[in-house]
Amino acid sequence: MRWTRSLITTLRDDPQEAEIVSHKLMLRAAMIRKLSGGLYTFLPLGLRALQKVERIVREEMDRAGALEILMPALQPSDLWEQSGRLAAMGPTMFKLKDRQERLLALGPTHEEVVTDLIAREVNSYRQLPCTVYQIQTKFRDEIRPRFGLMRAKEFIMKDAYSFDTTLEAADRSYQAMYDAYVRIFRRCGLRTKAVEADTGDIGGKWSHEFMVMAEAGEDGILECAACSYAANQERAERQAPPPAAPAVMAVSPQLQEIPTPGLHTIDQVAAYLKCAPAHLIKTLLYLADSKPVAALVPGDREVNEHKLKRALGCKRLELADNATIAKVTGAPVGFAGPAGLEIPIYADAALRGATGRFAGANKHDTHLANVDLARDARVTEYMDLVVVSEGDTCPRCSALLRLARGIEVGHVFKLGTKYAESFQAKYLNEKGQAELMVMGCYGIGVTRTLQAVIEQSHDADGIIWPASVAPYTVALLLLDPKDAAVTAAAEKLAGELEARGIDVLLDDREERPGVKFKDADLIGLPYRVVVGAKSLAKGGVEVKPRMSKEFQLVPAEQAAEKIAEQIAAAKQALA
Amino acid sequence: MRWTRSLITTLRDDPQEAEIVSHKLMLRAAMIRKLSGGLYTFLPLGLRALQKVERIVREEMDRAGALEILMPALQPSDLWEQSGRLAAMGPTMFKLKDRQERLLALGPTHEEVVTDLIAREVNSYRQLPCTVYQIQTKFRDEIRPRFGLMRAKEFIMKDAYSFDTTLEAADRSYQAMYDAYVRIFRRCGLRTKAVEADTGDIGGKWSHEFMVMAEAGEDGILECAACSYAANQERAERQAPPPAAPAVMAVSPQLQEIPTPGLHTIDQVAAYLKCAPAHLIKTLLYLADSKPVAALVPGDREVNEHKLKRALGCKRLELADNATIAKVTGAPVGFAGPAGLEIPIYADAALRGATGRFAGANKHDTHLANVDLARDARVTEYMDLVVVSEGDTCPRCSALLRLARGIEVGHVFKLGTKYAESFQAKYLNEKGQAELMVMGCYGIGVTRTLQAVIEQSHDADGIIWPASVAPYTVALLLLDPKDAAVTAAAEKLAGELEARGIDVLLDDREERPGVKFKDADLIGLPYRVVVGAKSLAKGGVEVKPRMSKEFQLVPAEQAAEKIAEQIAAAKQALA
Repeated sequence: MRWTRSLITTLRDDPQEAEIVSHKLMLRAAMIRKLSGGLYTFLPLGLRALQKVERIVREEMDRAGALEILMPALQPSDLWEQSGRLAAMGPTMFKLKDRQERLLALGPTHEEVVTDLIAREVNSYRQLPCTVYQIQTKFRDEIRPRFGLMRAKEFIMKDAYSFDTTLEAADRSYQAMYDAYVRIFRRCGLRTKAVEADTGDIGGKWSHEFMVMAEAGEDGILECAACSYAANQERAERQAPPPAAPAVMAVSPQLQEIPTPGLHTIDQVAAYLKCAPAHLIKTLLYLADSKPVAALVPGDREVNEHKLKRALGCKRLELADNATIAKVTGAPVGFAGPAGLEIPIYADAALRGATGRFAGANKHDTHLANVDLARDARVTEYMDLVVVSEGDTCPRCSALLRLARGIEVGHVFKLGTKYAESFQAKYLNEKGQAELMVMGCYGIGVTRTLQAVIEQSHDADGIIWPASVAPYTVALLLLDPKDAAVTAAAEKLAGELEARGIDVLLDDREERPGVKFKDADLIGLPYRVVVGAKSLAKGGVEVKPRMSKEFQLVPAEQAAEKIAEQIAAAKQALA
Repeated sequence: MRWTRSLITTLRDDPQEAEIVSHKLMLRAAMIRKLSGGLYTFLPLGLRALQKVERIVREEMDRAGALEILMPALQPSDLWEQSGRLAAMGPTMFKLKDRQERLLALGPTHEEVVTDLIAREVNSYRQLPCTVYQIQTKFRDEIRPRFGLMRAKEFIMKDAYSFDTTLEAADRSYQAMYDAYVRIFRRCGLRTKAVEADTGDIGGKWSHEFMVMAEAGEDGILECAACSYAANQERAERQAPPPAAPAVMAVSPQLQEIPTPGLHTIDQVAAYLKCAPAHLIKTLLYLADSKPVAALVPGDREVNEHKLKRALGCKRLELADNATIAKVTGAPVGFAGPAGLEIPIYADAALRGATGRFAGANKHDTHLANVDLARDARVTEYMDLVVVSEGDTCPRCSALLRLARGIEVGHVFKLGTKYAESFQAKYLNEKGQAELMVMGCYGIGVTRTLQAVIEQSHDADGIIWPASVAPYTVALLLLDPKDAAVTAAAEKLAGELEARGIDVLLDDREERPGVKFKDADLIGLPYRVVVGAKSLAKGGVEVKPRMSKEFQLVPAEQAAEKIAEQIAAAKQALA
């Protein structure tokens, strides 16, 4: 491909619209262009790389025995009512009406459509196990689309769904997908980590996320310094520490009211009482499926609402409104505490046996000192309830946990029979009895994966593509395009490389060498080959891997062979 | 691929939902399943064939020098306002609002997005010509989705757009796409005809449709019996015949009122007057951009509204409402005639010099006899205005035209500068002056093309796939799956074929031979190979092309080689 015919219009400066480096580089390297917030066009260079990622995904899905299908993006909303997710998806799901005023959804995911499909196509245990997948455009009305392809309103996802006869068989299907994901990301040149994750609105019992570790990641990841434990912060657990020692002010064993006029926040109250925030009991009121509950955590910690929701088994969890708080506590917002509450109370395990604490008094402008939780409150249950963070202890081995950031590129779920029940997806077993299928679902953000490669592999000059997903493998810089002999040499080499199945981008522009070198570094193809009057006079062409500072002068007639060998070795390393 | 792992659940009977044979066969052969009206899921067998069509399209687009890109399906409605097509698309375009209450369109086509894109990326004549394309999902809220993939609400289209400096350069880009289309359809095994077509809401001056001739086609095609003229009925012209002889009743030269109480239709009036329908002047009133105009055609012909609209150059053309008719003619609906009308009158060329005709009198329950059009009416212009039909004369050579039916699979348009003006898509010419780019646009209905292959290539038993787009090339029927020796022979042959790059579907089901033979004919792979205890005892395997009634007994060890040779020859014929 000739640069002059390729629609690669690089940008010299960082575009204002981009915050993170991979987004900036994709724009500068003319891979994508923004149409509107969260909506991107792939230019030829970006699409070539995307298609290489897609090919790797497809090959590994096929190798794992999954069957490729293609489901519509438009879906009747009835299916979402049938699964009970129409409300749960909320405004994140784009909805529209057709001419007949029928409500349609623009698919954010396809559990409903695929379960309805397989329920009709599969009748017998002989047809199971069955895993289907598609590589398809998905739509989500994100509150805050950002970071380019990382969080877009329209994006390409590989979604797969497994159907099995038993939980054990479903575990094998899950493992096959898990293993395929490990291969996919490795072949894309990505360093990923599989972490335990929350199942969210998808549901199901168990899930792993595949994380690309990167500062720009939107997810917090807790990793154990000693064992292999790693989990998304939404999901991460800890071993509860023993309760903090009683607050030093707590000299009397009696509950005692303390006026705290106008003090609302933990920090304000702790400063006023001259105690550590950890000596306060933070009391938050929630509505769990519209019923009030209280959650207690040490004053220096946050409630993990994912954990609370999962523990309660409720469909909807939200912070209680002011009216509910006033009704339940008898006081305005800011003075809730556990003592005397008549609603279910869930407390973090670190509060078990806590004495000598401060807490809200359920009374205007008042707190309590000397709270003994077991004595003064009716705690329904102690459980792991905090957002785990750096320095907490590993739930498996008690070593310290470290906090890092990651980009979620894949997510695998064990769904159990949740959707099979909604759609009565049953098969006849060997005895002719109908049983529910056991499902799993598996997603890869394909467009996000592409950008994650760049986020993880770049330097100050531009992208550094792994050979497996580079849009072209060789940037062939023709330095003197007006010199017929040099041009002929460059075109001959391009032809020889292409005959070996190596894709070449020939920079035939009438630009200064400096511009071509800068652009070659920016778009970051794995190899740069320079053909110019100077290099030919010195006896050859200059070959330089993008990663290296040094070039090799290679005789022109040997160049194709030498480059092909290096590329084969680089691809082998990713295979 | 093993049938037992392939999700191919064939149907014995024609599904009620399907009307035309290709739709029935796609359902019966487990290629697609209906999710909802106009929305289809591709099962593995259908998707494989679709991807083969896509690959041919991609190869020929690349060969023609077009660059692949990918634009979002979601588009800000502002772009459609900028081109003036938001209203023109009407309810056919799906629209929805995002969280911010911004109106988005779900792309039915991409002229707006691509022109906006290229206007930003291309600045210099050096970057032109430039043709970009995408293979992408499109959405249209069809009034009446039907015939499976033929008219669906969601479908896959290949859309390409060319940008050039001059009309002549644009003609070359148009020709390159036209030639690529000829190759694409030939490689898909389709017999197509390129016909002149109306440009419709897309606009532009000139267009060709690629038609698959088939009874089930929704389009009427006029073909000349002598020369190469062929056109869509929406567009087809004719040489106007001399005016019909005056009606026999017209003995007097004077205009004469005739009471025609309660007679509204042409047929009623002609029967009452005992004349041929052709002796009446059919007068229809329209609103062209809200202004009334009259259209006159011989009583036995229909007005071609596409022609009228194009001739008037109006944006919107619709039949006049009753109130307008009453106001313009002074009479109720059914009695309009040209005499005395004060609005612009457009008459078909066959009415030039017409005398001795009947027409409405613009008076309740009254017609006129002895109408001499030149004398009695103020005709603004005579033009070709009728829907051309079987038996009309070719506009080029005067031979007779034949009417046939076709399925539109491709459409190429010369757009001129229509969109470039809306989006100020300009380039700097060699003198540094800004000029508008000249555009073309080019579509292929990819999913429709797939179904058209079946509509054109099938028999009573099922599909007959051309080798180029068959989901698999060989159906390998293992007749005795419980016999280890037979199974081993079949699996060995499958392996040998796959090693030669031939894709094989191994029917390893525990089914009767009759079921396997029937299913093999139904899904219609180009070659059927039978491996059974009987065939092996006779010394080999049975090889039969789907098109043939006869099979060859081939020694098992030669089978792979023989089959590979035949397939190579069949593919060569389509190359």
